Amino acid sequence: MAFDHKHLIDITEYSADDIMTILETAKTFKQVNERRIKKVPTLKGFTVVNMFNEPSTRTRSSFEIAEKRLSADSLNFGGSSTATVKGESLVDTVKTLCSYKIDCIVVRDRWAGVPRKIADVSGVSVIDAGDGKHQHPTQALLDLYSIWEEKGSFDNLHVGVVGDISHSRVCGSLIPALKIMGCEVTVIAPPTLLPARPDILGADHVTSNLDEALPELDVVYMLRIQRERFEGAPYPNLREYNLLYGLTEERDKLLKPDACVCHPGPINRGVELDSFMADHPKRSIILDQVYAGVLVRMAALYLLLGGSNDGIDA
Amino acid sequence: MAFDHKHLIDITEYSADDIMTILETAKTFKQVNERRIKKVPTLKGFTVVNMFNEPSTRTRSSFEIAEKRLSADSLNFGGSSTATVKGESLVDTVKTLCSYKIDCIVVRDRWAGVPRKIADVSGVSVIDAGDGKHQHPTQALLDLYSIWEEKGSFDNLHVGVVGDISHSRVCGSLIPALKIMGCEVTVIAPPTLLPARPDILGADHVTSNLDEALPELDVVYMLRIQRERFEGAPYPNLREYNLLYGLTEERDKLLKPDACVCHPGPINRGVELDSFMADHPKRSIILDQVYAGVLVRMAALYLLLGGSNDGIDA
Amino acid sequence: MAFDHKHLIDITEYSADDIMTILETAKTFKQVNERRIKKVPTLKGFTVVNMFNEPSTRTRSSFEIAEKRLSADSLNFGGSSTATVKGESLVDTVKTLCSYKIDCIVVRDRWAGVPRKIADVSGVSVIDAGDGKHQHPTQALLDLYSIWEEKGSFDNLHVGVVGDISHSRVCGSLIPALKIMGCEVTVIAPPTLLPARPDILGADHVTSNLDEALPELDVVYMLRIQRERFEGAPYPNLREYNLLYGLTEERDKLLKPDACVCHPGPINRGVELDSFMADHPKRSIILDQVYAGVLVRMAALYLLLGGSNDGIDA
Repeated sequence: MAFDHKHLIDITEYSADDIMTILETAKTFKQVNERRIKKVPTLKGFTVVNMFNEPSTRTRSSFEIAEKRLSADSLNFGGSSTATVKGESLVDTVKTLCSYKIDCIVVRDRWAGVPRKIADVSGVSVIDAGDGKHQHPTQALLDLYSIWEEKGSFDNLHVGVVGDISHSRVCGSLIPALKIMGCEVTVIAPPTLLPARPDILGADHVTSNLDEALPELDVVYMLRIQRERFEGAPYPNLREYNLLYGLTEERDKLLKPDACVCHPGPINRGVELDSFMADHPKRSIILDQVYAGVLVRMAALYLLLGGSNDGIDA
Repeated sequence: MAFDHKHLIDITEYSADDIMTILETAKTFKQVNERRIKKVPTLKGFTVVNMFNEPSTRTRSSFEIAEKRLSADSLNFGGSSTATVKGESLVDTVKTLCSYKIDCIVVRDRWAGVPRKIADVSGVSVIDAGDGKHQHPTQALLDLYSIWEEKGSFDNLHVGVVGDISHSRVCGSLIPALKIMGCEVTVIAPPTLLPARPDILGADHVTSNLDEALPELDVVYMLRIQRERFEGAPYPNLREYNLLYGLTEERDKLLKPDACVCHPGPINRGVELDSFMADHPKRSIILDQVYAGVLVRMAALYLLLGGSNDGIDA
Repeated sequence: MAFDHKHLIDITEYSADDIMTILETAKTFKQVNERRIKKVPTLKGFTVVNMFNEPSTRTRSSFEIAEKRLSADSLNFGGSSTATVKGESLVDTVKTLCSYKIDCIVVRDRWAGVPRKIADVSGVSVIDAGDGKHQHPTQALLDLYSIWEEKGSFDNLHVGVVGDISHSRVCGSLIPALKIMGCEVTVIAPPTLLPARPDILGADHVTSNLDEALPELDVVYMLRIQRERFEGAPYPNLREYNLLYGLTEERDKLLKPDACVCHPGPINRGVELDSFMADHPKRSIILDQVYAGVLVRMAALYLLLGGSNDGIDA
């Protein structure tokens, strides 16, 4: 499997083959885990800097665990603004970090474009762990992995993405990634939560009618609602949102028998998802997504840092 | 040594044999250390999440060191309220963590009962590192270990526990643990700092007269005074507390010749303990308790996670 | 190479031989790195506590990386005041840490003298990572290492130290260290930023005229300006400071052809250093200093904790 990327910043730079290489590598790590080998020495001596300039518990934890299971050394850095640390520019901060002879920077930032800027000035691999409302490529990869495991392939899959499309960085990577893999994508959202040009992400269909769309879907991807956008706003309120766009128990009968439900977490129960659906033993693959997050991050780190298949086994 | 617990939450679920197994395992780790082997590969590849929802420097540090010396990977998590993280319920947070394929959650929380709740919804081992005013079982185990090392056995030991019984989670585990090991326990406190039903913890005697009780004791366990309960209160103030319930140099003559002094730390010097007693080379085993904390936490992690004796050596 | 120090607190307690041992050990680590071996098992099982009682991103990160590359376990501790944690004295906190059977405390504190105090009450090695305006010995060692690598030796070197001498802990170690190595040292600063007794650090010359001094220097060490000392002050303001004491492109012609430029970072571009000089491919060794920081900290930890040369290789 050829894989010659240095960075994971923009999922649209990856081909379907590149993405399959990551998913298959992730699957290998899962199989290693199943033999009760949780940790491989592959990246022993490598240093990965987790530069989280925005708070993030879930994504940071997932990366940290992936790094430890590859035996890499992690350095947590940041927490404050990227613009300046003690008046130092982002560029100087990154050049300083690179002078420690590190191997990779995983970056989360509130500003779109920061990961690319870091890649431009550093000599090391950069992974975008979420930049503003722009991209979140490892989230897209873990979503793809979970769908692939659940469905067996991406052939003839119709995926619906439901919710706050306009403010979601998850969408920014997920929808293009689904298109790269050949899926049909329908975006479903209230008109106020659609971007001005909904075509821009490459979805095949756009609608505001969830009930009409649901019977066509093989995968229903529910986005997280940012409660702060709703509270105090005149319309829609959370209750109305749940009525119109929530995946409720009542809507279960609209779904195909084998349709599955995804969510990037954390869930607002009773808003975008009722507990009936969130915990549905056959439909919900939400917790599988969490585990997939560790696996695809291990795979991405491994492939970007030049691992060979020899190194995977313990 | 049979040991078939999955969790360490309620010390009263442990038998005297279970507790002796932990203490003897801790002693083995101490002996390994004395051969200058500080780190064993026993839990290599295991992931332990330290979920500290309340600030704690000492207990968290002690667990972290124990985990590192067993070669486990630690993930620090929390710091904020357990009730909700980004609106997510505790149950969802725990299920997310468990989806990382972790092996153990060490939890400190301000609410009694949170460790049990976590054990109920997760598939992994849970260690209570202090929940509200309820329990703190690894503190009790390190106290038992220190007393056992100092005294050689628990036979015919009379232990006095002195101070703020009603607000102490240390007591909640320590007094039942001392009773399980067969000790005689006397509780000594101002009437205002006794629980409404002092018998509830199982102590044999209750008194408010320290000077009368001291000559009978083999071990004097001084609780930490929460200064914030006293400052500004009309009675007792800290000075009065020290006069009536502080272990002062003057009270040394009331003690048996071989009586020893314990304290869970950090000490309020001049309040519950004078420096004469805190630093007394023969009586004070307070710093031994700190080391014992690392040893019993290593032992608990090791036994709960299914370690066999083969794994202890480096 | 004999090396019998237990602590690294006051650089004036080190002889030229001691310092050369550290620099040569650092060079060995660099050579090991160049063979793509980033991590050595030398301090496996050792526990190093990073007690940073003042915020510090750069120094703390550098120590953490050094510790990980030696395979030591790091425990991060502190963040708040040293004076008291939960009312506990510094002495009790240190004694508690030492009871965990740790091997070294790396301490940064806002009060001068805290590292010495810790060394007095603990049984373990102490490294001063900066105490108030007093010393910062590992900074001095990384500066020496970078100069030594750049210049080949310390013979006949004339080093100028430019800037806020009176408030700099970097100076407190650097100037004495340069004198130990036999360099000629000129201090250059506005009269208001000189200490009352400029001779106290052992510099050979003191001047306020940068332009006169520059042509004599082999190494120009630019100190970081604490912006907060200038903003709002009547004189000098930052613009005037740059005109009189900044290393600007115009001043490049005053420098010896092979003079090099150092800075402890982070740089205030446009104040003490113009970007022309900061990024000058031949003159600036500022990023080399950052890497040297990891190497000398590895060397110091290794030598203080009793490493032998056998252990360096992976």
